[in-house]
Parts: sequence; C-alpha cells; structure tokens
Amino acid sequence: ETQMKRTMSYGKGNVFAYRTYLKPLTGVKQIPESSFAGRDNTVVGVDVTCEIGGEAFLPSFTDGDNTLVVATDSMKNFIQRHLASYEGTTTEGFLHYVAHRFLDTYSHMDTITLTGEDIPFEAMPAYEEKELSTSRLVFRRSRNERSRSVLKAERSGNTITITEQYSEIMDLQLVKVSGNSFVGFIRDEYTTLPEDGNRPLFVYLNISWQYENTNDSYASDPARYVAAEQVRDLASTVFHELETPSIQNLIYHIGCRILARFPQLTDVSFQSQNHTWDTVVEEIPGSKGKVYTEPRPPYGFQHFTVTREDAEKEKQKAAEKCRSLKA
Amino acid sequence: ETQMKRTMSYGKGNVFAYRTYLKPLTGVKQIPESSFAGRDNTVVGVDVTCEIGGEAFLPSFTDGDNTLVVATDSMKNFIQRHLASYEGTTTEGFLHYVAHRFLDTYSHMDTITLTGEDIPFEAMPAYEEKELSTSRLVFRRSRNERSRSVLKAERSGNTITITEQYSEIMDLQLVKVSGNSFVGFIRDEYTTLPEDGNRPLFVYLNISWQYENTNDSYASDPARYVAAEQVRDLASTVFHELETPSIQNLIYHIGCRILARFPQLTDVSFQSQNHTWDTVVEEIPGSKGKVYTEPRPPYGFQHFTVTREDAEKEKQKAAEKCRSLKA
Amino acid sequence: ETQMKRTMSYGKGNVFAYRTYLKPLTGVKQIPESSFAGRDNTVVGVDVTCEIGGEAFLPSFTDGDNTLVVATDSMKNFIQRHLASYEGTTTEGFLHYVAHRFLDTYSHMDTITLTGEDIPFEAMPAYEEKELSTSRLVFRRSRNERSRSVLKAERSGNTITITEQYSEIMDLQLVKVSGNSFVGFIRDEYTTLPEDGNRPLFVYLNISWQYENTNDSYASDPARYVAAEQVRDLASTVFHELETPSIQNLIYHIGCRILARFPQLTDVSFQSQNHTWDTVVEEIPGSKGKVYTEPRPPYGFQHFTVTREDAEKEKQKAAEKCRSLKA
Amino acid sequence: ETQMKRTMSYGKGNVFAYRTYLKPLTGVKQIPESSFAGRDNTVVGVDVTCEIGGEAFLPSFTDGDNTLVVATDSMKNFIQRHLASYEGTTTEGFLHYVAHRFLDTYSHMDTITLTGEDIPFEAMPAYEEKELSTSRLVFRRSRNERSRSVLKAERSGNTITITEQYSEIMDLQLVKVSGNSFVGFIRDEYTTLPEDGNRPLFVYLNISWQYENTNDSYASDPARYVAAEQVRDLASTVFHELETPSIQNLIYHIGCRILARFPQLTDVSFQSQNHTWDTVVEEIPGSKGKVYTEPRPPYGFQHFTVTREDAEKEKQKAAEKCRSLKA
Repeated sequence: ETQMKRTMSYGKGNVFAYRTYLKPLTGVKQIPESSFAGRDNTVVGVDVTCEIGGEAFLPSFTDGDNTLVVATDSMKNFIQRHLASYEGTTTEGFLHYVAHRFLDTYSHMDTITLTGEDIPFEAMPAYEEKELSTSRLVFRRSRNERSRSVLKAERSGNTITITEQYSEIMDLQLVKVSGNSFVGFIRDEYTTLPEDGNRPLFVYLNISWQYENTNDSYASDPARYVAAEQVRDLASTVFHELETPSIQNLIYHIGCRILARFPQLTDVSFQSQNHTWDTVVEEIPGSKGKVYTEPRPPYGFQHFTVTREDAEKEKQKAAEKCRSLKA
Repeated sequence: ETQMKRTMSYGKGNVFAYRTYLKPLTGVKQIPESSFAGRDNTVVGVDVTCEIGGEAFLPSFTDGDNTLVVATDSMKNFIQRHLASYEGTTTEGFLHYVAHRFLDTYSHMDTITLTGEDIPFEAMPAYEEKELSTSRLVFRRSRNERSRSVLKAERSGNTITITEQYSEIMDLQLVKVSGNSFVGFIRDEYTTLPEDGNRPLFVYLNISWQYENTNDSYASDPARYVAAEQVRDLASTVFHELETPSIQNLIYHIGCRILARFPQLTDVSFQSQNHTWDTVVEEIPGSKGKVYTEPRPPYGFQHFTVTREDAEKEKQKAAEKCRSLKA
Repeated sequence: ETQMKRTMSYGKGNVFAYRTYLKPLTGVKQIPESSFAGRDNTVVGVDVTCEIGGEAFLPSFTDGDNTLVVATDSMKNFIQRHLASYEGTTTEGFLHYVAHRFLDTYSHMDTITLTGEDIPFEAMPAYEEKELSTSRLVFRRSRNERSRSVLKAERSGNTITITEQYSEIMDLQLVKVSGNSFVGFIRDEYTTLPEDGNRPLFVYLNISWQYENTNDSYASDPARYVAAEQVRDLASTVFHELETPSIQNLIYHIGCRILARFPQLTDVSFQSQNHTWDTVVEEIPGSKGKVYTEPRPPYGFQHFTVTREDAEKEKQKAAEKCRSLKA
Repeated sequence: ETQMKRTMSYGKGNVFAYRTYLKPLTGVKQIPESSFAGRDNTVVGVDVTCEIGGEAFLPSFTDGDNTLVVATDSMKNFIQRHLASYEGTTTEGFLHYVAHRFLDTYSHMDTITLTGEDIPFEAMPAYEEKELSTSRLVFRRSRNERSRSVLKAERSGNTITITEQYSEIMDLQLVKVSGNSFVGFIRDEYTTLPEDGNRPLFVYLNISWQYENTNDSYASDPARYVAAEQVRDLASTVFHELETPSIQNLIYHIGCRILARFPQLTDVSFQSQNHTWDTVVEEIPGSKGKVYTEPRPPYGFQHFTVTREDAEKEKQKAAEKCRSLKA
C-alpha cells in the first residue's frame, strides 16, 4: 500500500527578538477610517517561530545521526542576528528576509515556515520644557491586540518559492454597548437561550488577510502595504455602524469593507469568539445603564473567509439600494 | 477565475461537562510496560469543542438571516445532555455518539469536528476502618498530562462518514537525569551551543495515534482500545532504556515501540519540545548531583510521524542485531 | 497561655461587574505631565473581592451551623446590584458605598475588606459622516495597566470606621531605550553581572498611594481626586527625564514627584520588577540600534515607600541646587 | 509628627534551582492516613524568592548610590550555589541554611524573607528485565499540589533570630461526589442560591502549619518533621469521612485532625476556595450519575486558623460523645 507521507520538521519557538531604531515605516496609504500614518519603529519586538523541513533530516530521527542537524539554538542565533542586519520596515519583510537567508545558507533545508508575532510598544507622554509631547525614549509594552504574520517558503530546484503568506491582527477585544441583537434562530428542545433584541455584543477577533501579490506584504512599496492598525480601525468603524443581527453578519461586513478599502487583497479570514456578558440588572431608575457580569465559560466561535467575489456582490447590492432609493 | 473554496464554520468552545458514574472501562488488553487495567469512571470530565459546517449557514453570514442557525448555546445544551445519555466508556466513543446525534438531528449540518480534552480525576487515599485504601468519593483534579481526541464526520448522501479520528496524550513533561547527549551537530558561524555528553534531557510530549479501524477507538471492544495511560507508560520506559542522542531519535523509538505493542494502529505522531535546564553547578564534592536552572525562553521542537513501515524496519534491524550477536 | 488571635474570614472573589452609563468623572485637577481630564464612564468594569469577618461566624466553622451565614453567592448579588444603584463616579467611591451598605444590612458582620480591580475600556475610533472621531458605542477591553483600590472598614459600636484605604495602578510595563545604567554595585565571589553603562531598562510598576483624608479618594470633590492615569503619566515623565542609576533611585524620584504634584497624599508605595532584556547584538553598522532578547526567568524586585518627608527633603535639595547654580 | 515606618526591601524572584541527588529524606514518622514514608530526592526543584532589608540600603534609593548594593543577580548565584552545598533533606532546611549564610556573608543585611515553592517530580514506571518497577532516571514534572515554605530571619546584635516560619501545601484540588450539603443559610432579598442537600463539593485548598519549635521544620530530626504529603492525605481522609455541611466546617475538622496527628504543631491555617460545579442533568435513568458544568467565575473563599485549643476542644467533644454512646 502507499507509503504514508509523513510529517517531519523541527525548529525553534519563542525566539524573542527586540530591535531598537529599525527603519521607520513611512509612505503608507491612509484610509478614512484610520489615523494610522506609519510607525516610528524606535522599539520593535517580535516572537518568532521557525520550522524547518527537509528529507536530509530523516537520519537524525531514525538513526540518531546529528551530522546534518542545524541545532535549534543556532537557528535562534541566526534569527536574532538577522534582526540586526534587516534593513526593511515590517515583520512581513523580516520573515521574507530570514526565510531566504536560511534556505541560501543551508542547502539541505527544503522548506521553512516562519511565524512572527509582534510585541507592540507604544510611546508614552513626556513633559519637557513646559510642553506635553510624545517621548522618544519611554514606551509601554502593550498586551492588547497585535499583529502576526506567517510565511512558508520552499526550495524547488534553484529557486525559492513562497507557498503561503498571510498577515493578521490577533486578539482584538471589542464591545459595543447597544445596537446588537440575536433573534430568529432555531428554537427546539435543545434551546434555552432567550432571544435578545439588545445585547452588549462582546467579540474577540482574529482577522487575517492575503495579498494578490505577496511582494506587497513586505512593504518595499509602502503604499501597497496593509497595516494591522488600519484593519483594526476598519473593524471598529463597521462595528460602530452596523445594527448587528449576529457575529456572523458583522464579520461578513467587516470583511467586505476591508476588501473594498484594499484592492490589493484577495481575501480576509476571521476567527471570532463571542464573550458577551450576562445581564444582571436590566433597568436602573434614572439611568440608561445596566449591570452585566461574566458568563459561564462556553463561548461561541465562527471561522469565515470573505472573498473578493463577496466584496463585489456587496458593492453591487449597495449600488442597487442607492438606485432604488433615488427612484 | 475559480471561486475560492471558503472557510465557513461555527460552533462552541470550552463546553465543560462532568459526568459521575459513567460505565467503567474494563477488559483492556494490558501491556508489560504499564499497570493500566481500566478506568472506574466515577468522575470523568471533558472539555468539548464542536465546529459545524454546512452550505445552509451561508445566509447567516451574508444576510444576517438566522432562520437556520442552531444557536451555539443550544449546541452546548446538546453536548451536555448527551453526556447523560451516553452509555459507552470513553471520550472517543462519546464524540462518535455526539457527532452522529448532531448530524441526525440537524439535516442541514454537513460537517462536524468534535474535540474532547479530558480533565483527569485521580482517586485519593482514604483511611477507613483501620485500613488505608482508595476512596470512592474523593478525587484530585490533575493538571498533568491528559488525553484528548478529535473526530471529524461528514454527511454524504444518506450516510455519515468519519473523515478523521485520532487520540492523543498531551503535555506529558518528563525529565531523565542522565544517559542523554547531544553532540555531532553542525558547527558553523551561527553555532554557540556547546556539545553536551550528559544533559538532563527535559521533554514535553504530545503523542497522537490513529487506528487502522476507527471503530477500535470507541472501545466497543475494549481489548482493541489503546489507552493514553498505556502510551504514557510506554514513552516513559523507552526514555528510561535509551541512551538518547537527541529528542528526534527518542521519539522515533517511542513511536516504533508503540506501534510494536499495538498492531491495531497505523501511525503515531509527535509534537515534542525541549525544555532542558542550563547547568549552574557542574560538580558537587561528595555527591553525584548537580544544580541546574531554567533556560531562556526559546525552546526547540520537533514534529514527526512514525509509520507502520518504520516500525517494521526497526523490528528487522533488531532481529538482525540479535542474529549477528549470536553468530 | 494567651489564646492565639485566629484568622477568620470568608467572602467572594472574582465578582465581575460591568456597568454602562455610570456618571462621568469630571472636574479633576489637571497636571502638566498628563492630558487626563476625566472619564466618560460609558463602560466600566470591575473585578471585586469582598472578605467578611465577625465573631458571629465562628459556629459556621466549628459546628457547621449555617444559621448566620450570608451565602457568598448572596454577597455576589449584593455587590452587582449595588453597582446599579451606585451614583458616584469611581471604584474607590463604589467600594466605600458597598462597605457601608454591607455593614448596615448585616449587623453581625464586624469587618469588611473590599478590593476592586478595574477592567479598562478604551473608546475606539469611528468614521461617521466623513469625519474620524471617537465612538460612543465601541470600546476595546485593555489588558494593560489598570487601577485597583482596597478598602477596609470595621464596625466599632454604632460607627463604621475606615481602617485602611489605598488606590494603585498595577502592571504598568515601561521600557526606556537609553539613559539607564547600573554600575558601582558590590563585586565579590558571587558576582557575575557585568557593569552596564547603557541598558534598555524595562520595569513593571505597581504604584499605590494613600490620602491624608480618605474622603478625597471617593471623588465626591473630584478636584481632590488622584487618578491612576495621572500617576501613570507622572511615572512616565520622570522615567523619561532621569538618567537612572538603578530602579531603586527611579522609583524614589517618581514617588517624590507624585507627592509634589498631589499635596493631598501622605505616601506612595512601589512594587517594581526588573525585566530588562539581555543584549544579543551590541552594534549594528549604520544604525544606532541594537538587538536584545528575553533573559532567564529570575527578576529583581523592589518594595519601597516614599513618604511626605522624603518629598520635602527632595524639594529642599532641588532648591539648594538652584541657589548654588545661580551663585 | 512620627516618621512613618517605611517599607524598604529588594530581592530576587523566580530563582529556579534544580538539584539532583539531594540527600534522601528518611526516618519520618508515618501516620495511618498516609502511605508517605520519605522522599528519594533524586530530582528536587524549588522556585525561590528572596527579599532583603536593611537601613544601609536607603542611599541606593534616595541617592542612587550603589556602593552597598548586592546585585539581585548575585543573590541568584548565591542561592543556586548553596543548593549545591546544602547537605540537608528539605526545602525548609534549605531556606534556613541560605538565610544564615546570607546574613553571615553580608553584615549590612538586617532582615531576610525567603520563600521556596517546590516543583514536584514523580518517578515514572520502567519495564526492565521483565519487571515493571519504578525508574531511578525518568521523572514527570507535576503541576498539581505542591509544598511551599516561608522563613523570615533578622539580625539582632550578634544573633540571627527566626521571626517567622511556616510550611504549606498549595493548590490541592479535591472533589467529593456525594455526602456534601449546604442548607440553612440566611435567605433574604439578596439570596438566589437554592439550598442543596447533595452537591459535588469541589474545593481548592492551601493549608499551612506552624511548629511549636521551628527547628522541627528543618527535619534535622526527621521523626518530628511534618510532610506536605501527609497533610494532603489527612485532608483527603477527613473529606472522605465527613458529611460536610459547608467548607467552613470541613476545614475546621481537617485542621483538628492535623493537630491531633502532629502534636509538634501549634496551628493550622486554611485558604480554601469553592469551585463546585453547576448541575446540568439531575437524573439519568438507569444510573446514579449526573452531569455538571463549570459555574460562572465568582468563587467563595474562606480564611481560617485552627488552633491547638480548638483541637483540644474537639478531642473532648469526641470523648464525651463516646461516653454518652456507651451509657
């Protein structure tokens, strides 16, 4: 019977690397929904995982023969040193640089998967010479949403082919205090959830995007680069605008808006989670407020990809609505 | 151009369900390396994630039409209630039961992926009537290694097909105080790691296995069931026996041993991590001991599948070694 | 011999309570180092722990007599409902309100300790009517630094006395890329740490403060209220200004500055931690940047209180320096 | 006015230290409720925090003068090296050794607080020479309950006085499937919790104990040493025996039993938490089982000290009960 294609790879995780005074990211194309105009890159941090594959490594498994093994500790040195020599401006570009350097340096590596999760630093205020401005020295490490990118490359003959590239923003936690409902779903013997015409929808969002042309992701031409900060702000505005009937519909509209704003993308994918609170006090005399609390642990989630086709259909639907309104 | 096959699914995570007095698991086939003989199942806990797919759900995304939406809160009720009606003995069997019941109940669900991560409970000692024995009432919740299984099913016409099933043991953390080395690897400009002829190898292991016949995983015939406890004990014995030249070789041998012991399996896959300590004090006068400490965060990892073919080759190698020793 | 004064209390932890449209905090006294001018309080979240003491509870322990036990579940209801009826603007004020209501409602409670840890929400941008502004609907939940306050009250006869009150900002993580050194410390047989004239000092700060007059903490007179946001910005500016010889000296100067800005406080206490990175690449040709990485787990910490006396001494030292410079 | 006594200390946290082949702990006094008979100490791990105080350190805060500063990195070296030279058998003894060595080495240190949290290792099975036994090489790192001890020492003139010592077992998570109730508590407008005559009580326990004579804690005379394993097993047996009306009463009885078994102790303190599940399915036809799930986050907790006096009273109550039964 057919030999099963085995999984075989090894590598290093949690390679933390911090770089000061990376070349600033400038020249990005601004969008109306976001004030994002670039990054100083005075302090950048990244948590890199690198995973290597190649037939040449099989004897290290089957025979304990380490002759061709690149120690994962050396991979860690390789990555950290290359953050010093990297001359670009983005994590996407850095992963691209490292992938090529790895495959160029070690001819027996056939495949490489690199992931880089950003560790964001935000400039703090400083009061200097009777003026409150932004410090160029002091930064807060943020544990909020952050970007992450993934690159897979493989050697085919003399070339190196990028087989996968996507960027994402992870762990964006947004709550909208009104303008959300969840009604009309199936009610049967297994249903205990009441309909809710006004819930404080609380979502955790991971949003990822792929470019038509992978080269755009590296920001060599920054005007074609899509920044996670812009995606975050787009998601926020769409959430603000939409009377949401469900998370499913919310992410669909966010995806269509991102694709409308960024023609250089082919698709946008979502991993969303529902962490909406339970209501404790429904009415407060003299206030429009309410009191809520954390629910039990089970949470709903959605996985969905919005395609360029979806975005086109939405554009047409919107155009038709306009025409019928004018008519 | 071709319509991109989109990702579309939704479901519920962290569905914790605890069941008391589940039917005990008896009749397992014991192996020499393990004292495991079955489970009382007085308290079993499982953390279930269920992910549903089906073309019928597309309007909930694109149009906010919830008419066909099974609320994820209802999925949670479904799962928890079915742990009450489940008459089998294993999580694998429970997932199989739930998958069928979901697809039978909701005709517009096309695919379902269920994962169940066990929350282990270990009976505590009790001193009763002047005798120290095992309590039937008091259990400790363990945060150590635990089993987990995954089942994917889909509807094709009138049948339900299991498209994937595997079981695993997660997060087994083992250290071996001597008899481990890591030498002979590539040394170049990126290498700072010294060779080590005697390291206290510390591994985190996730080990998963697949059956030739998926039905064996449900333990309807318990003699054909492979228990995570047995896999754990096999891994431990192989680690004990082997002079390890690397984690790569260690997991290869563990995999071959598991396949030798359990002919009903087709392959064993590993996700291993290296968390070996750094040495602080190399020599202690009057003691063979040493002092170590936690290293920096980066850790090496390996992903590897050992196939039935590998196991056969190892068997032959061992047989040849025997013959040449006798000769 | 004397009866040992026993510990005896019980209560509820992780009482999450979210309130929308709490009365906004306005009228705070601004300081030069911070743009903070108040809080909208559209969404506020707090994680409350309440701990109750009283001799009357002893039989519940010794005799299993629950007659006088207020179920902790009821305490949870009490706290959450009172967030609905609370008419103030701060967590400090909320704890004060709850403490009084508890002791007024249950005459057999003698002591109460309440802690409230804020769950911060930050308004997101929204693009509406061709303008980018701040949304009144969509908020991001922040996992960065947050405020926390503690209140201890006890019944003495017919009065309720506040025996302790302090407010704090927790888990502020700041890095300063240059202008920090650590030299001149003791070098002996146990010393391996090299001197460092230029380290990227990375501190985690918990800063707490006490008021001369506890009533100021509730913000009934908001001009006397000290906001965690102001304390955070003061800490950041002092860090920006100071050539730091150590964390010890940094926190001393931050404390003096806080006491100078806020005469209503008696003392400021610090719990600080050192998480400075290790250097990997010291020099990058053509750049003033460097590459760093996460160190091993052990971290230095400091606990220190800066008193009003310290602040006065610093003021005098600064005044003398000025005079000698002019002379 | 009086100068406020300031907080001033500094030190090192997360000093992980692992020692192989520490001297085994033998000669402990066994108790009926536990099979514990000693520890091999082949692999011991401890996470040490050390906190130093002394007036001499004030200039490092106020003036940035590091002349008398023992770098916390040096403290880390000190602790790790002393785990190599330590000749005793317990963490309590190790902390005592380190405290003395610190105060003897650095005359300007006045106070020291050391905490040591054990990282437990459990021997794994090994199948060798056709026999299943316990490996002397392979150990599992446990993330379950573990011991921890605290020691405070201070210099007074030429002597070093131990001002506080206690040992504890942390994070023991036990569930008892029946024989627990919670009824008869106060019902008022804030009460929504139903009475429960049969709940699967799930407790998290931290239990700490103090010795009459601190020297007993170091196990120089192992027969007077109280092992965390013994305390764990006592807690388990009492839980098994008792029809619990509340956690309050459960911990009272556990405390009395510990003090009865170990006359060398003066008191036992508890920090307990209630994490009992919510019931989902109350009745399963054909089974005595039920289905439960995780509750919302708020949890009840208790802090209580059981004194030697309490234990004596319980002994008398039990004696009286016996007499009245016989009569």
